[in-house]
Amino acid sequence: MREQVGTLVSFRPDIKVMDCTLRDGGLVNNFYFSDDFVRSLYIANIKAGVDYMEFGYKASGEIFDETKFGKWKFCKDEDIRAIVGDNKDTGLKISVMADVGRTDFRKDIIPKSESPIDMIRIATYVNTIPAAIEMIEDAHSKGYETTVNIMAVSKVNSDDLKNSLEILAQSSVDVIYLVDSFGAYYPEQIRRIASQYLEIAQKAGKKAGIHAHNNQQLAFANTIEALTIGCSYLDCTVSGMGRGAGNCFTESLLAFLRNPKYNLVPVMNFVEQHMLPLKASGVVWGYDIPYLLTGILNAHPSSAIRCIKEQRTDYSRFYHELFDNVL
Amino acid sequence: MREQVGTLVSFRPDIKVMDCTLRDGGLVNNFYFSDDFVRSLYIANIKAGVDYMEFGYKASGEIFDETKFGKWKFCKDEDIRAIVGDNKDTGLKISVMADVGRTDFRKDIIPKSESPIDMIRIATYVNTIPAAIEMIEDAHSKGYETTVNIMAVSKVNSDDLKNSLEILAQSSVDVIYLVDSFGAYYPEQIRRIASQYLEIAQKAGKKAGIHAHNNQQLAFANTIEALTIGCSYLDCTVSGMGRGAGNCFTESLLAFLRNPKYNLVPVMNFVEQHMLPLKASGVVWGYDIPYLLTGILNAHPSSAIRCIKEQRTDYSRFYHELFDNVL
Repeated sequence: MREQVGTLVSFRPDIKVMDCTLRDGGLVNNFYFSDDFVRSLYIANIKAGVDYMEFGYKASGEIFDETKFGKWKFCKDEDIRAIVGDNKDTGLKISVMADVGRTDFRKDIIPKSESPIDMIRIATYVNTIPAAIEMIEDAHSKGYETTVNIMAVSKVNSDDLKNSLEILAQSSVDVIYLVDSFGAYYPEQIRRIASQYLEIAQKAGKKAGIHAHNNQQLAFANTIEALTIGCSYLDCTVSGMGRGAGNCFTESLLAFLRNPKYNLVPVMNFVEQHMLPLKASGVVWGYDIPYLLTGILNAHPSSAIRCIKEQRTDYSRFYHELFDNVL
Repeated sequence: MREQVGTLVSFRPDIKVMDCTLRDGGLVNNFYFSDDFVRSLYIANIKAGVDYMEFGYKASGEIFDETKFGKWKFCKDEDIRAIVGDNKDTGLKISVMADVGRTDFRKDIIPKSESPIDMIRIATYVNTIPAAIEMIEDAHSKGYETTVNIMAVSKVNSDDLKNSLEILAQSSVDVIYLVDSFGAYYPEQIRRIASQYLEIAQKAGKKAGIHAHNNQQLAFANTIEALTIGCSYLDCTVSGMGRGAGNCFTESLLAFLRNPKYNLVPVMNFVEQHMLPLKASGVVWGYDIPYLLTGILNAHPSSAIRCIKEQRTDYSRFYHELFDNVL
């Protein structure tokens, strides 16, 4: 296990806060955010000192029907530019996520010099890492910062994970992300696994990041525990908006960080003006017992999302269904 | 810092789960729980393998008007007996909380041999510890198990806290509780402070406990972090019901524990049958931004409770009011 880096009152210049509200939150409402919402979030992030704002996915228009999703599933450069202009001198960088196998990266990712996007985050499973590396090298050669986000690692055996990390460490990727897709990890596991990510990443001159889910109300705790031992790229979303139980709350994370560049007030104003109306309109995410149950069973949240959508409250029956179907 | 005790898959026979739903939850609804609710909770706790159920406070009828609160603020022995009978062979012990200065302990706490109560938990501030010790010795001599819960320690300087713990370690108390009254602590602080409690308590042959609040959504995380380094008495409430942001959720805690005596299903059934209707009736608790703000400022939650009650959502203004009034 790694030692603590700094203390509660120290300032860590390596820390980067990544707002994923549109991207992970878009999984809740099929990416149907109003332009006003997106523009206000962009301005709030700038004022709050957030380092990166992820606008959504760079999904393939060949694979997904563009009439069935909001535009942030596709993140066309012109749509981003309509919000951010040239995004000059803001201090906020723009990222998009590109899923392995679901992105026409050769066509849709243009050279960085012609794009408002700064960073491509490549999401992969362990078994598609060679394809992820192809995308990393493509994005890197086009001039982008890159991260690789290995999903569902709580289902991967330790040997495979170690091999994957070592292969990725030989690529051009800048940041390797620990992703707790199912909200299954406890803090002591996060410390152990993040230590491994950090050791392999840092030896290769790379950074490590953390993306947590809130199934067990541990997203914030796990994020700061990973941070405390050296992870520096920290994913969060406003009010925790994200698939199922959602993510680490931006509000909590900014309040925790001691770097004076971060400012909680613009985020609270954004919550008041945009997140409360969004919630009131019936968009549902956040901790609930069905998510706790998929989290403790290390299961994909899809069945819990369905359970919540159907407004079921027969938790014990749902629990037993999970045992029948996922274990 | 203490080393981890056991692993995620080991069974810790020293662990005791303490249900505080009626006591901390009673602070939300002035202790107006129906007998059906209380009886159902009692049965759920027995089935779930919970070790202790706290029925409420043993408050003084001289100080508090009994017509203005539900009966669980006073926890008369006959009211408890009406629910639990003799509580024979259930495996569940009964506790009540007695506040220093607000309990007629000489009169209202009768010998254990004549009472359905097993444990008296004495709640004190650092500056009332001599009075707490008087109550500890009174309860101990009457045959009760005792705990001492030092409140608001996040506002106490380290020297005073260390002295307090050392004085308490010389008393007859069985368990010394670390209480994060304001939900102000981060996991790394909990590990550090709990280490101190454990060191002093264990040297004197006593146990340590943890009572967390969820202002920063860290109640569960802080509870299991304290557990992981050796705390064994773990406070929780069903659905986190408790003052302000509430407490560590019983649901999460039982799911975490590996001791096969604990069973999550009866608690989920209780949530479905009793907690959902209670919430639907308008009783409000749980994480919200005003509680986050008092938590990060290490302030009493009363102003946040008022803010929520008034349905204010002007979070930034509330934040600035806190700076003016509490810092």
